[in-house]
Amino acid sequence: MLQGHQSWAFTNRPVIQATGTVVGPDEGDGPLANDFDIVHGDLQLEQESWEKAERKLMEEAAELAIKKAGLTKEQIQFYVGGDLMNQIISNTFAARTLTIPYLGIFGACSTSMEGLALAAMMVNSGDADYVMAGTCSHNCTSEKQFRYPTEYGSQKPPTAQYTVTGAGAAVLSRKGDGPIVTGATIGRVIDMGIKDPFNMGAAMAPAAVDTLQAHLRDFDREPGYYDLIVTGDLASVGYEIANELLEKHKIPISQTIYKDCGLMIYDIEKQPVVIAGGSGCGCSASVTYGHIMKQLRNGDLKRVLVIATGALLSPLSFQQGESIPCIAHAVSIEGGVH
Amino acid sequence: MLQGHQSWAFTNRPVIQATGTVVGPDEGDGPLANDFDIVHGDLQLEQESWEKAERKLMEEAAELAIKKAGLTKEQIQFYVGGDLMNQIISNTFAARTLTIPYLGIFGACSTSMEGLALAAMMVNSGDADYVMAGTCSHNCTSEKQFRYPTEYGSQKPPTAQYTVTGAGAAVLSRKGDGPIVTGATIGRVIDMGIKDPFNMGAAMAPAAVDTLQAHLRDFDREPGYYDLIVTGDLASVGYEIANELLEKHKIPISQTIYKDCGLMIYDIEKQPVVIAGGSGCGCSASVTYGHIMKQLRNGDLKRVLVIATGALLSPLSFQQGESIPCIAHAVSIEGGVH
Repeated sequence: MLQGHQSWAFTNRPVIQATGTVVGPDEGDGPLANDFDIVHGDLQLEQESWEKAERKLMEEAAELAIKKAGLTKEQIQFYVGGDLMNQIISNTFAARTLTIPYLGIFGACSTSMEGLALAAMMVNSGDADYVMAGTCSHNCTSEKQFRYPTEYGSQKPPTAQYTVTGAGAAVLSRKGDGPIVTGATIGRVIDMGIKDPFNMGAAMAPAAVDTLQAHLRDFDREPGYYDLIVTGDLASVGYEIANELLEKHKIPISQTIYKDCGLMIYDIEKQPVVIAGGSGCGCSASVTYGHIMKQLRNGDLKRVLVIATGALLSPLSFQQGESIPCIAHAVSIEGGVH
Repeated sequence: MLQGHQSWAFTNRPVIQATGTVVGPDEGDGPLANDFDIVHGDLQLEQESWEKAERKLMEEAAELAIKKAGLTKEQIQFYVGGDLMNQIISNTFAARTLTIPYLGIFGACSTSMEGLALAAMMVNSGDADYVMAGTCSHNCTSEKQFRYPTEYGSQKPPTAQYTVTGAGAAVLSRKGDGPIVTGATIGRVIDMGIKDPFNMGAAMAPAAVDTLQAHLRDFDREPGYYDLIVTGDLASVGYEIANELLEKHKIPISQTIYKDCGLMIYDIEKQPVVIAGGSGCGCSASVTYGHIMKQLRNGDLKRVLVIATGALLSPLSFQQGESIPCIAHAVSIEGGVH
């Protein structure tokens, strides 16, 4: 049901029945290693290209989620997926393997929550009995597509982020128990004129705050309604800017409840390779469907708002002098609502 | 409401309140010229790049649709859009201009009906009062991204299709009168192993037939339920293959009711530049929202099924030896249902 101007309230209990998360070696070295289903020790996954390795991550996460839900892929009516690759090939080829009717989406790193929001809407309104949402990213495929050939190993400024190698999938239905998707807020495109593809956090922070403001307004809530509010992948630079913007807009949010997935998935002190922190569709997806879901299931968290941020960066529009348009979509997930 | 395995039945009258269509010079030379709102005489639209011209087409179509619906952009809650460009930049930048909360989608040329299906679902379920769906393509931007630099003017085989320069947008709500979206069928990814990017029609035809079969099964209908069934952009080669597949699968469909947008938008005899016919997101969008909508409004057509086909072609996966995965989404639109 439409809630306010740009949000949905889901009152028919769309339950996240099961999730699947698969990550790579750097994520396996990070503080959340134990919260993922599979940690691969290498980036290649025995595939002949990084793109095929990324696809494999997605397929594994999807198959795991379906299996953990006690279902077969034939029982899932729709798969809502997308990723960072041109023509979202990781998800398209995964959808070919899965043979589930497929809705391709693109919101850069916000794809995770765009997919979860749409999946929850379908289940909530009775347009699906079972639906799956998924997304993924791979450090090497993103690097070569958006910046420089991966093999260059080019030096980067301290604002740069590190694309997460990982995939996450969630199966939703009205049946069973589990964390419930209670609402979603769809973001507008926000562009503050930032043109530096090595400073995505700064570009995305205003979009995250815009969507949070809209969410609080549409649901008439204070940030304290939530135990945890996480942004997708602002990393250290964007996280600081987001905090400044929250203060500027007088949004009362305590540092203890506001975190960022890009800072949670790695230990930026002990893992200097990640520079400012994590990014990529796989970042918010693996943290949400792995770490956060675990805490919602065991009762450590009751109410969480995930604001997945996306820099809708295009090498072509960047070359043509355009700035980086950004977006953020927020989804509220609550445990223990029966 | 879920209908069968992969379809939605919309019983709450999601009305297409208004549409906007904008095309380029070749489409203005074609047989449907009088059915479009704006025909541009050149491909540049006074913009400094073809990409910016494509964005302009989308913005014009969207603004027209909103204006014709008697609304302001502030009244539209969600914009569902996508296109063929990497990172769907035409729609992302149009969404920046429009400042409407934005859901980016990608289904190649099937994007038109993926967007309409999702928009109708939102209105039908009460998740939106007003929602807009839109898509676009531009001959020169597609040519350079998917094949060769446009300036080459490379020779092409007789199976090649010509990307439509055009955009279409539709505003939906439960209010007012107009053609009603009564159902939709979401397609699976179908890949018959075709690897030739100059023969997209052949690659896509099996996906179109698969989705049509699913639609007829899910709704328990015969093709004769419809006055018109149109595929998106199979063009002459794919249209012939689709007809063969329909015969093989014993789907009784008369030639008088089955047409293809790629063959409707151009006169392939008088316009040899288009070779086998039209393709691109703008093909099914401009034909559906221009020509077909006009006929539904004036009563010449009562029940139409639009099966938008998409070749989820990626230059990268093609270079890595992959075949072309395809998909088709079908939407039924009925006039005079009050």
